[in-house]
Amino acid sequence: MIDLKDKYRSVRERSEDICATLKTEDYVVQPVVDVSPPKWHLGHTSWFFETFILQHHLTGYSIFNPSYPFVFNSYYESLGARVIRTNRGNLSRPTVEEVYEYRHHVDAAMDHLLSQPISEEVRKLAILGLNHEEQHQELLATDIKYILGHNPLFPTYTEIANPLSGEIFTEEFITIKDGMYDIGYDSEGFCFDNELNRHTVFLPAFKIAKGLITNGQYLEFMKDGGYQKHEYWHAEGLDWIKTNHINSPLYWHWINGRWHYYSSAGVQPLKLDEPLAHVSYYEASAFAAWKGMRLPTEFEWEVASSRFTWGERWEWTGSAYLPYPGYVRAAGAIGEYNGKFMVNQMVLRGASIVTPPEHSRPSYRNFFHPHLRWQHTGIRLAQNIN
Amino acid sequence: MIDLKDKYRSVRERSEDICATLKTEDYVVQPVVDVSPPKWHLGHTSWFFETFILQHHLTGYSIFNPSYPFVFNSYYESLGARVIRTNRGNLSRPTVEEVYEYRHHVDAAMDHLLSQPISEEVRKLAILGLNHEEQHQELLATDIKYILGHNPLFPTYTEIANPLSGEIFTEEFITIKDGMYDIGYDSEGFCFDNELNRHTVFLPAFKIAKGLITNGQYLEFMKDGGYQKHEYWHAEGLDWIKTNHINSPLYWHWINGRWHYYSSAGVQPLKLDEPLAHVSYYEASAFAAWKGMRLPTEFEWEVASSRFTWGERWEWTGSAYLPYPGYVRAAGAIGEYNGKFMVNQMVLRGASIVTPPEHSRPSYRNFFHPHLRWQHTGIRLAQNIN
Amino acid sequence: MIDLKDKYRSVRERSEDICATLKTEDYVVQPVVDVSPPKWHLGHTSWFFETFILQHHLTGYSIFNPSYPFVFNSYYESLGARVIRTNRGNLSRPTVEEVYEYRHHVDAAMDHLLSQPISEEVRKLAILGLNHEEQHQELLATDIKYILGHNPLFPTYTEIANPLSGEIFTEEFITIKDGMYDIGYDSEGFCFDNELNRHTVFLPAFKIAKGLITNGQYLEFMKDGGYQKHEYWHAEGLDWIKTNHINSPLYWHWINGRWHYYSSAGVQPLKLDEPLAHVSYYEASAFAAWKGMRLPTEFEWEVASSRFTWGERWEWTGSAYLPYPGYVRAAGAIGEYNGKFMVNQMVLRGASIVTPPEHSRPSYRNFFHPHLRWQHTGIRLAQNIN
Amino acid sequence: MIDLKDKYRSVRERSEDICATLKTEDYVVQPVVDVSPPKWHLGHTSWFFETFILQHHLTGYSIFNPSYPFVFNSYYESLGARVIRTNRGNLSRPTVEEVYEYRHHVDAAMDHLLSQPISEEVRKLAILGLNHEEQHQELLATDIKYILGHNPLFPTYTEIANPLSGEIFTEEFITIKDGMYDIGYDSEGFCFDNELNRHTVFLPAFKIAKGLITNGQYLEFMKDGGYQKHEYWHAEGLDWIKTNHINSPLYWHWINGRWHYYSSAGVQPLKLDEPLAHVSYYEASAFAAWKGMRLPTEFEWEVASSRFTWGERWEWTGSAYLPYPGYVRAAGAIGEYNGKFMVNQMVLRGASIVTPPEHSRPSYRNFFHPHLRWQHTGIRLAQNIN
Repeated sequence: MIDLKDKYRSVRERSEDICATLKTEDYVVQPVVDVSPPKWHLGHTSWFFETFILQHHLTGYSIFNPSYPFVFNSYYESLGARVIRTNRGNLSRPTVEEVYEYRHHVDAAMDHLLSQPISEEVRKLAILGLNHEEQHQELLATDIKYILGHNPLFPTYTEIANPLSGEIFTEEFITIKDGMYDIGYDSEGFCFDNELNRHTVFLPAFKIAKGLITNGQYLEFMKDGGYQKHEYWHAEGLDWIKTNHINSPLYWHWINGRWHYYSSAGVQPLKLDEPLAHVSYYEASAFAAWKGMRLPTEFEWEVASSRFTWGERWEWTGSAYLPYPGYVRAAGAIGEYNGKFMVNQMVLRGASIVTPPEHSRPSYRNFFHPHLRWQHTGIRLAQNIN
Repeated sequence: MIDLKDKYRSVRERSEDICATLKTEDYVVQPVVDVSPPKWHLGHTSWFFETFILQHHLTGYSIFNPSYPFVFNSYYESLGARVIRTNRGNLSRPTVEEVYEYRHHVDAAMDHLLSQPISEEVRKLAILGLNHEEQHQELLATDIKYILGHNPLFPTYTEIANPLSGEIFTEEFITIKDGMYDIGYDSEGFCFDNELNRHTVFLPAFKIAKGLITNGQYLEFMKDGGYQKHEYWHAEGLDWIKTNHINSPLYWHWINGRWHYYSSAGVQPLKLDEPLAHVSYYEASAFAAWKGMRLPTEFEWEVASSRFTWGERWEWTGSAYLPYPGYVRAAGAIGEYNGKFMVNQMVLRGASIVTPPEHSRPSYRNFFHPHLRWQHTGIRLAQNIN
Repeated sequence: MIDLKDKYRSVRERSEDICATLKTEDYVVQPVVDVSPPKWHLGHTSWFFETFILQHHLTGYSIFNPSYPFVFNSYYESLGARVIRTNRGNLSRPTVEEVYEYRHHVDAAMDHLLSQPISEEVRKLAILGLNHEEQHQELLATDIKYILGHNPLFPTYTEIANPLSGEIFTEEFITIKDGMYDIGYDSEGFCFDNELNRHTVFLPAFKIAKGLITNGQYLEFMKDGGYQKHEYWHAEGLDWIKTNHINSPLYWHWINGRWHYYSSAGVQPLKLDEPLAHVSYYEASAFAAWKGMRLPTEFEWEVASSRFTWGERWEWTGSAYLPYPGYVRAAGAIGEYNGKFMVNQMVLRGASIVTPPEHSRPSYRNFFHPHLRWQHTGIRLAQNIN
Repeated sequence: MIDLKDKYRSVRERSEDICATLKTEDYVVQPVVDVSPPKWHLGHTSWFFETFILQHHLTGYSIFNPSYPFVFNSYYESLGARVIRTNRGNLSRPTVEEVYEYRHHVDAAMDHLLSQPISEEVRKLAILGLNHEEQHQELLATDIKYILGHNPLFPTYTEIANPLSGEIFTEEFITIKDGMYDIGYDSEGFCFDNELNRHTVFLPAFKIAKGLITNGQYLEFMKDGGYQKHEYWHAEGLDWIKTNHINSPLYWHWINGRWHYYSSAGVQPLKLDEPLAHVSYYEASAFAAWKGMRLPTEFEWEVASSRFTWGERWEWTGSAYLPYPGYVRAAGAIGEYNGKFMVNQMVLRGASIVTPPEHSRPSYRNFFHPHLRWQHTGIRLAQNIN
């Protein structure tokens, strides 16, 4: 059985580790609405423990600063006014140092609480809080990439480029027979409410790719005029590329006659045999149409996932983010976690190179609006079987 | 077997009948981007026959006016530049009289063509053109309602208010067992490509309401503070009601201490036992949550539809508009009909009081963005069975 | 002495004459916020007489329609809610026929009133109303040009192109000595409050052009890259041309390798020796800078105006629209006429080819925001004398 | 004669002094487009010396970082691409420390250059650079106030509230006779090009207030419903207050039943006898109208300025920002300094409590758009004499 206190410490430390090479200034800015300042992530994840656990379950706990709930609440309508998302990057205070003090204040109190016998409710909330923090670690990493990758000086985050599995490039497809399949989480451990209830679906037979699409394959699409050919695109996708002058994945730069990309090691020549990342659902879908194929549904993905390697790219599926049969939103603020986002977003499956260890599983459902691509979003193809 | 020439004539006449009581000025305006000017509908449906049939299949046909394709193309990217949707209401020319001349020019040519033996291709295109026109008849009716219902003089469209079936108010629910069900069109007649392919799904057991939600039931939700309680709303729905100051269905007006609504007979006191109309998906979904229930999926609706009366309100489902398994977009401009809209929209099932006769069937899939409500959109509830 | 009843009749008829060749549909649309639908002008000018005169001064007068004040009020805050300007083009009702009925109802009542002895107050209000209507005649003509000139069918307004004075092209400059000059209206007749009070200014010596800039001269500026050279432009002008992709005057079209323009006779080749029209203040100012000169101030223009021909183009001056010394806003709604617009606008002097006869004088001050150019705005240059 | 090297050192140090109590994070953010991050001001003023002087006039000078010109150019179109103003707050790099290194690199080089005999051109450019820096010091102080004053924690900038002159509250007016007056700079020292040429104007007689409007006087306007009475406002001012929900000066807060304001010492009760600050031109103009008076013109202000105390508030005038007769824009990038802003802005005269010493004179012309109020903008009244 895992020791919760140890788990708490290691997860919390990991957030700080991700920020280890940042300058103070990097913690503060918010270049687009979807990105949050790193210091906000550090504060918000601490606020979660303070608000949902310490305030109610640790006798004598004193709120670190009564203004912080206003600053660090993200979207919990139940819990009063909050700094609107587009304003987060306007806040110079609290300072980074103060945010770290806040974290350590919360950590000391949590350490104290977890050293005592705790109720099942507290245990569940603590585990939720850690999973919540792990979700923010993924965002923290991608937000930092966005902040540095959109700075005209293109600062380096680490010396080494993203390590990748080096899986062999393959065009092989796996065939899955039609039949009844069970979908959703069914183990003992933690899962989010959107992975429940486990339920049965019927799937027609299909094929799904063993490998992810590479930069080189995507470049073929670009060279073939993929961004100019309306027949591959959703109408809204076409508007999106026209309005935003988009003609390549995010972070790609055409320099001196060849494609480069910004990675954590700075700007460097594009590696053709690396898995593609940073495309929107619109781009993923258009690429699949160009190939004469399609994206897998989230059910197909889950059913087939034991038969391919995954975990480097969040993979767009062709499924809209909707509740499973029998899904019930929890009461109170905790119930705002997932259900209220179940409209206008597409499901991603898998995990990415910046997903925390142990924070992925076949039933995990991530979701983003179709135009977003600052996550490490990639493409796996599927096909019908006639 | 239906006579295509007669069918053509009756469908085309129906479009003009819908406009019979309009003033010339009513044909011209476009109060919001989603509404098109009536004269544009009349021209666009004629353009469809000219562009896809007459130009290619009637020897010696001469284009009525070479500028019209630019004006009356709606969204077919394959077919060149078009007047963007927000500009349609800026166009005083062609005049209403010229648009009717255009219609009659096209009608004469189609009559000539359909008097001769025609190929199967032409026959299919003509039937598609008529179904396309019937879709626009629905929009024509709701766009006219919007134009008149948003005029400060609140003009009357007809003397008589919308006729309704007078179905008895019922809170009864039908129970459907779990099992394998076939979904999609499977008859000989016409259907749209989005109703294909017919395929099997597995559905858990569920209950679905026999009746539609009434104005009176919705008023209860309003009186209980439904628009103020965030817990019933999607996050985007909450933004939508706040940004647009929405606190009732479209066309409802609070006058002298009681609710009224605008109908085709003008502004009149709200009828409590009439089926609710003109709510967005966000509102439908929030109402269902307030009831402790949910909207049916489009599959549930289709499976159960033989057991309740429908056809007065387009009914929001909880399903996102996505392709069926095996769906393939047709090549060329005709292929732009449905597939490119399959993102960010929700499916509606049923039909409405302004749907043309013979233009509804259990497999019919309508779709709109979740914030739209100028169609006669209503609510039917569903429940899980534990 | 002028007969007011005759004057009333001839001014009111002139508004209808301007619309004589319009189709009903042309009366309805509002392609941009600055343009008003012609039927709105016809209604608003009638509303002015009804609201400020008939209601108060004609015993037994009955309001034509109690909803019309809401529809036809333009901007008089004192007089209650009004249809916001961007909504005017959404209104199909009242119909054109109803607006004409409204006009004739007002005209009959005014005719009745003016057949009796009237007070000096009524006389002044009637004269103000007629001058108000003449101002709207200018707008009516330019709004019609905008509506037809932005229609993809480019309808013809009249058979004959705008008649012009045919003044001989001249590059001659007039020299005005330094000295004290009196500015503002000083006669017996009507003037607007913004032309008062007459007051003294001291002007340094200057030169001012006898002729207006022609299309051909402006074309030289364009050929020299004038729209690309930032040094001639205000910072806000540069933003304006970049944001709106502007590289020529309004109504100019590059067709088959040469410049054309839209005039009331339709699209035709640009006439090089005609006075330039339809440029913004930014363009006028940039052109003058390119010439190494400047625009005259409104005082310089007024002082020199007896020495050159004017009246075909509204001429941009380098003066901001501000009150004259001693200017006092009148009390009540009439006081909203001019003073509240005295910020962020530039003064134009002269008159244009569509200015009503007798509606121009040397002291007349017109004014528009610097980016507007749908009036017949042109350029006259001035120079300092060292 | 001033020693330029000493002057350079003291001006440059003053910029750093202004930032002495800031946290690193305070240097980075840009809460609204009009405010720039403090580190940007520090970098931009250094870039000015590097670009216009060191690069051309110090042999062997090496550019500190070739990317900095892109980051720190403000608006000089002649000098290539620049970071658009709304993006400045997105830049975490260069860090504050790097910006200070940049400053000190430039300072060392300037010290070296100014230790040698220099040409008159260099001398003039250096003086321009110092005046430019002093202008930015004013902005630096007000931008810092905005950054801290819009933070939900309301941090304190200094312990002591703004020192004020303590001039006695007076309602006395000074009378100035009509006559010819000379306007513009006419001394030996430095002035900006917009203060030239010195020229003669004729002014009618007028009265001008000895004192500035106080918070208490403005509160009377508010209590009398000043923000609700349209008759005092420009039409654009009325739109501005309605759109932005404005009902008090910037930094005023209604807390527990009384007015407070944010000052550099934090939030504190409003001092009624202090000069009003942080109002827009629209508010200043509406207040004057409510008083039955007006704002002085910039000429009136300059002529009368020797007879009253000024220097605590920038004072709105009723004059639009336009060139003086004979004004000529300098060639090249230096010529972009003032002329291109001469449209849509209003002139302010005087100086404020954060204006650097020796950086004010009676002929000094400041200018802002009429809706801006983050400077210490105040009100002095004037009246006509009949």
